[in-house]
Order: sequence, then structure tokens, then C-alpha cells
Amino acid sequence: MNDRIQTLRNKMAGQNIQGMIISNPINIKYLTGIEAEGILLITRKENIYITDSRYIEYVNSIITPFDEIVIDNYKNISQDEYENFFMFCENVGFEEDFVTYAKYKEYMHKYKINNFTEAENIISQIRSIKDEEEIDNIKKACKITDECFEMLLKFIKPGMSEKKIARKIEDFFRENAEGTSFDTIVASGENSSKPHARPSERIIQDNDIITIDMGCKINGYCSDMTRTIFVGKPTDDQIKIYNIVLENQEKVINEIKDGANLKNIVSSLEYEFKNKGFSMEHALGHGVGLEIHEKPFFRRNMDTFLKEKMVITDEPGIYIPGKFGVRIEDTVLVTKQGAIVLTESKKECILL
Amino acid sequence: MNDRIQTLRNKMAGQNIQGMIISNPINIKYLTGIEAEGILLITRKENIYITDSRYIEYVNSIITPFDEIVIDNYKNISQDEYENFFMFCENVGFEEDFVTYAKYKEYMHKYKINNFTEAENIISQIRSIKDEEEIDNIKKACKITDECFEMLLKFIKPGMSEKKIARKIEDFFRENAEGTSFDTIVASGENSSKPHARPSERIIQDNDIITIDMGCKINGYCSDMTRTIFVGKPTDDQIKIYNIVLENQEKVINEIKDGANLKNIVSSLEYEFKNKGFSMEHALGHGVGLEIHEKPFFRRNMDTFLKEKMVITDEPGIYIPGKFGVRIEDTVLVTKQGAIVLTESKKECILL
Repeated sequence: MNDRIQTLRNKMAGQNIQGMIISNPINIKYLTGIEAEGILLITRKENIYITDSRYIEYVNSIITPFDEIVIDNYKNISQDEYENFFMFCENVGFEEDFVTYAKYKEYMHKYKINNFTEAENIISQIRSIKDEEEIDNIKKACKITDECFEMLLKFIKPGMSEKKIARKIEDFFRENAEGTSFDTIVASGENSSKPHARPSERIIQDNDIITIDMGCKINGYCSDMTRTIFVGKPTDDQIKIYNIVLENQEKVINEIKDGANLKNIVSSLEYEFKNKGFSMEHALGHGVGLEIHEKPFFRRNMDTFLKEKMVITDEPGIYIPGKFGVRIEDTVLVTKQGAIVLTESKKECILL
Repeated sequence: MNDRIQTLRNKMAGQNIQGMIISNPINIKYLTGIEAEGILLITRKENIYITDSRYIEYVNSIITPFDEIVIDNYKNISQDEYENFFMFCENVGFEEDFVTYAKYKEYMHKYKINNFTEAENIISQIRSIKDEEEIDNIKKACKITDECFEMLLKFIKPGMSEKKIARKIEDFFRENAEGTSFDTIVASGENSSKPHARPSERIIQDNDIITIDMGCKINGYCSDMTRTIFVGKPTDDQIKIYNIVLENQEKVINEIKDGANLKNIVSSLEYEFKNKGFSMEHALGHGVGLEIHEKPFFRRNMDTFLKEKMVITDEPGIYIPGKFGVRIEDTVLVTKQGAIVLTESKKECILL
């Protein structure tokens, strides 16, 4: 059987869950490689992928006997068969963060499930620890992101719009990767004070500040990097805030390693910011993988321990409403010894 | 108060629902114009949009006093206040097709809701009937889709890959609209037998068949059109099947009008296909608006009556596994008198 499904089955057994309905396409891609519309059932005896005639040809072409996945067309499955899939299961798991309330009710009824158990955690925890192939994909995505930044430093000039820069980034990632891993942010001047600004028609001016948040995908795996750059001369205020953000961003990198508690890292950063009269307006970071935001998350109110082979972002920012903002972000790999920074673009950029 | 929220409140009153939690960003955009991360509460007395500091500046910039929407930062709301929002509501509605099981439980607890009622239908039915401005946006998106097709007829040549054609389409829509409304399909030769094929490196050959399914967005509103074209000489089989699909696609257009039952239209098409030895492998069509797939849906097992000002697709197809497929699709507007076809590209295309 395919290793990832085997790992899932082992974890399920540990939680007294005998069956599972997996409907999140990202989880299905992770477990099977299939990218289509369908549902994966882990029953006591079998792994069954149910889809429709649009995808049967494709799915058969990528599943090998080694996977031990039965492919079925939903049209050939009777109501009796649905009810039999989980007949002798004490608990059946589902993805409570993906399955809508309507689907939850539908599944309960269709599969005649008595104990339908929240089991999102099982898969997301497996996914949070990356294997070599996954790390390799993320590394490649980060490398291409660095190359894109290198290109931008030559490309950006006063007189061009934020949208033009964003489009250049998108073209680059489409040309050199599988496109962007999220909506590119290019926020200049006062727009940079909005952490999630959208690229606008605003024209880059002399002595402008620009925050660029971007990433791409390789084999489905994401990168995520933010740099704040100056086109011309920064103000004293900008230099001051830039240095506070940079110092703390690097402090976080030094705190990241196997066993570290994300809650403590957040608290310590918030304390530092508060001391200087600022506050942390958004999350400090998140896991990165097949999704741009996945486990683990930096939360101030919950113990979350890092493990080696997790990949996370470190992205503190300070935003002065109506004036400007600074955010600096890297994607980093967690190891026993510490963090390995995967996005290597330089962090002090003044374009003249 | 803004008209759309007023309409929603009237419909809620008709169903004895006094409060509503709206979390689907598309519904929030429809009701308020806001495109951010947040939640819209319709309470007995107020409309409240709760977001975080990242979006407060932006949201304040687009809401007018006429909207009667209170903007709040979730950080300033206490647990007591959450519990007070719906205190005197007998029933509180939520979007059961959007809200995950985990969120459902979270809302129940956070807002202390006793009767949490499935109310997706109320908004999706309002959204299914388009106003003039919405129709205008969809018309524009369809017109640009026609222009793209016109461009493609000159562009496509044997020797280029499906991916190259798909990229050309995406460039066109990015240049002339807000990008694509869904992942473009360019499926040539035997790939056209898969209704949802992805553009591949397959090279267009002489005497090839190509199915192109594409659409763009204008002010958030989608278009959707499919054409199957021949590069060179079609085979007799291809001509035969093309004509069956075209005939039936046009028959459906003639059946579409205010009051028609989609179930009957589907049955009649399936009967025609069966008579000729084929089957209908996917849904015959769907509503189009802010989402590429929205109400109403063509379902074979449910009465669904068309109303004027709905916008739907009509997209029958026949697929011969391993050989080829033909699908023809238009986006059409429903009126009292009949259908107005919004995608006007010609339907018999042989490129020589």
C-alpha cells in the first residue's frame, strides 16, 4: 500500500477510528496523487476512490497496483453498498475544517454513520511533517522566488504602477513555476500600511517604500516571501521601523527549532514590539506545503511545538495607518539544530 | 439601507428568521461590496461587518452611510457582546453549504445560538435573479469571451501545444478582463474525450478536434463558453456526433424561458441522446454570476423552475472514451419570451 495511506491507517488505529471519508482535494492529492473531483474512502478493508465518468480515464492512468486503491464510478454504487462501506466501524473520521454542515449531514445519512468523528487533525499533522521530496519541492519554489526578486530589483522603476509589478511577478512564476501560490501583494507608499493590500494603479514614486509579498508553486508545493524595499531615500521613521522589524524577524529565525513552542515565540515578539510602542497586527507565521496556509500556526493562546521537517513562515510586520508599513518574511525549514532559511533574498534593499 | 440587504431581511422575515451569520465572501461581496476577510451579521437591529485591523481602512473606504453597516474590529468585541448579537432571535440563519462543521460548532457556541437554521437558499435564490447591473457585467464578460474566440481562430495552428493555446487565452483575459473565471480547458484529439481535461503538452495536429472551454470575469461576474473546433477535416463520426450535440444544444436554448422546468429539459435531452446510443455524462448546465457555478442547477431528479433574469449555461456533450468528445456551451439570459444567448461565437468552425 502507498506509504502515506499506510501512515494514515496507523494513526487512525491509534485513535480507535476504523474508517474515514476524505473529501478535501488537497488531502486526496497528498494521499493518492489524484487531482480530480471525487472522494476517498478508507474502509476497514479497502481504499476506495469514487469519482465520475469525467475522471475515470485520468485516475486509472495515475494509480498503480502498489497504491491499492480501488477506483469506482459513483453511478455504479447502490445505496446498499454505501451503507456497507463503514458497517463494522465503531468510529468514522471526517475533515471537520473542510466538510460543510450540509455535506456532514449528507454523509451521515448516505453512509449510515453512527459515530462520525472529527479527524482533521490526523491528516493535517501528518502533512505538517514534510518528507524529502516535499522539502525538495518547497526549496525549488523558494529558489525561483529568490530569482524573481533578483529580477524585480532590476525591473522596478519610479513611474510604473503596482499592478505592472504584480503582473511581472505573475508572468515570471507562470514561466518558471506553476504560477503563484497566492494573490501577489505589491503595496507602495501609504498602501503598504494595509497588510493585505491589493495591487492598485498607484504609480511608484521617487523615495517610495514598497512591500512585495509573493510566492510560487512547484509540483503543488508553495513558497512565501515578503520583502520591503525602498526606491530612493527612506525617511528616518522608515529606517527606524524597518530595523525593528528586521531585528525581530531574525530573532524569530534564531528561536525556531525542533521542540520550540510557537506560543512563546509570539509572546516574546509581541513583548518586543510593545516595548517600542507598536503592536503585531496579524499572525506571525504559518506552515507551508501543498497549501499556502497550513499547520502549524503561530498562535498566542495555544501551545504549538515545532518538529523537525516542518516548513513555516516568519513574517512580522509593523503598520502605521495612512502612512506606511514594513513586513519581512521568509519560508524556513525546521531542523533539530535550528532553522534553515529557504528564501535567501537579501533583506536591505535600497534602489537608487 | 442598501437594497440587497433589505431584500434579504424581507425574505428572512418571511421564514421567521430574525438573525443571520453570513461568512461566504461571495455573499458578503454581493450584499455589501466588501472584498476582505470578515463576517457579516444581520441582527434584529443592525448590520455589522466584523473584520480585523488589516482591512478596517479599506472597508471604511467603500461603505457609505446609506449602506447602514456598522464596521467593527473583532479585537474590540467581548464574549458578552457576541452573546448579545442574537439574544432575542428565535431562529438564526447560516450558510450550510459554505460553513464547515467546525465553524458551525464554533458559531453556535460563540454566539450562544439555540436554533441555528439552514438558510443558504435565501441568499442563493436572491442571487440567482440578476439585476440590470449584474446582467450588464455578464454581457460584457461574454462579449470579451467572443472576442477571445475570434482571436483564437486566427491564432491556432497545427504544431502548437494545448498549453500554448490555454496561455494565450489566459493572457487575453488578463489583458481585457479580470482574468479567467475558471481553469481554461483546451483538449485536443483523444484528450477531448475527457470533459475536464487539463491543457497538456499535446501538439495540435492536422485534422485535429479541439474542445475549448473558457470564460472571464468583469467586476467579479463570470462568462462561460465552450466550442469544439476542427483543424482540418473532421471524420464522418465526428461530424455525426457534432451535429447531434449542436442540434440538442439549440433545442435546449429553445426550451429555456421563464417558467420552464430544468428537470424536463434534462429528461428530454437524455432521451434524445439515448435514442442515438449516447449518454449525458455531466450536468447539462448551471447558473452563472459572481460564481462560475451557482443556482439554478440542471438536475434530473428535482423540479427547478426558471425565472426571468436568471443567467444559465447550456452545455451538452458526447464523449467517446479514448477517441474524442464534443461539447458546445453558451451562457444565456432567461426572459419571459425565451432565452437570449449572450455568447455569440459561431458554432461551426473548421480551420483550414
